[in-house]
Amino acid sequence: MSQDLDPLRRVVAQLARFPGIGERTATRLAYWLLRQPPETAREIGEAVAGLPDAMVTCSVCCDIAATDPCRRCSDPRRSDEAICVVERPQDIAAIEQSGGFHGRYHVLHGAISPLDGVGPDDLRVRELVARIEAGGVVEVVVATDPDVEGDATALYLARLLKPLGVRVTRLAHGIAVGTELEYADRSSVARALENRREL
Amino acid sequence: MSQDLDPLRRVVAQLARFPGIGERTATRLAYWLLRQPPETAREIGEAVAGLPDAMVTCSVCCDIAATDPCRRCSDPRRSDEAICVVERPQDIAAIEQSGGFHGRYHVLHGAISPLDGVGPDDLRVRELVARIEAGGVVEVVVATDPDVEGDATALYLARLLKPLGVRVTRLAHGIAVGTELEYADRSSVARALENRREL
Repeated sequence: MSQDLDPLRRVVAQLARFPGIGERTATRLAYWLLRQPPETAREIGEAVAGLPDAMVTCSVCCDIAATDPCRRCSDPRRSDEAICVVERPQDIAAIEQSGGFHGRYHVLHGAISPLDGVGPDDLRVRELVARIEAGGVVEVVVATDPDVEGDATALYLARLLKPLGVRVTRLAHGIAVGTELEYADRSSVARALENRREL
Repeated sequence: MSQDLDPLRRVVAQLARFPGIGERTATRLAYWLLRQPPETAREIGEAVAGLPDAMVTCSVCCDIAATDPCRRCSDPRRSDEAICVVERPQDIAAIEQSGGFHGRYHVLHGAISPLDGVGPDDLRVRELVARIEAGGVVEVVVATDPDVEGDATALYLARLLKPLGVRVTRLAHGIAVGTELEYADRSSVARALENRREL
């Protein structure tokens, strides 16, 4: 086979476009597909092909969602007083799963990174400012990553948003719950020391 | 997102059907798709969805191919005197890349495995016998895997085909070229001893 089959080689080439999937894995997946009932390839393929048309950017929170405004932005049970700012859409799931936040979200789609040429104008910062200027927001919880870019973004947002009369807070970073001190990574211990609290 | 988005969750669920791709990887791939131009998801998805309809089983060699008979079965430059028998379609590529075989192929689609309930009737053995009975074949090169199932299949084929007047040979198994004896695995060394040749 391997050369007859333009269709098979095409599938291998297409699957190998996914990050972390090399030609070897793609070949394995393609041959696996051939051993399944034809519906399997059709169902997987159609779900993938239909993804871009099925998703929109929510005009309120900038999340990628099935509807605009998204389910969370139109949920009347959520508080309008707090907005949690995340770098990526998938970060929302982590906050939601914690069960500790019941406000709205805002997705920046990145973080400030001068080295990569990403400034505030490349992020969804303007949309966030507009939401706060519209009133009703008391607190902005910045949930950017604990790295250089996330720190810079948090600092930038604090300076930008505080003058608008909102509290700007940031997720605490320190030793992960369940991690023994002995096995905690250096940066987490450094953050834990920095953010130590009076008992 | 993560819950609005039936389409996204659907893609995650579909990608997670692939062997070796868990929900975490599937989620990462789906979000990657969302960051690409829409053509990317469409091209990948359509190639995958179209695979089953694009492939047929070659009625001669039982390989999965774009045409029937397949490119190799209809290639006049190949010798009809030798048939190389493999377990899986993808095994053909390994033989072809070696450049050492110029005959035809036959894909069994498995190996005899009593423990898994796979007998000769579950493999494309009948088709192989028919090819040999049609005449012109001098040698059958059995290229099944060097494991219990591959060995059993090779033995079975030898007993079945020799009475038809063909030579039945099997690929040599031993220490892989480039492997130092010190690092060769036990089974390969055992095979190398078993198959040792007079110099």
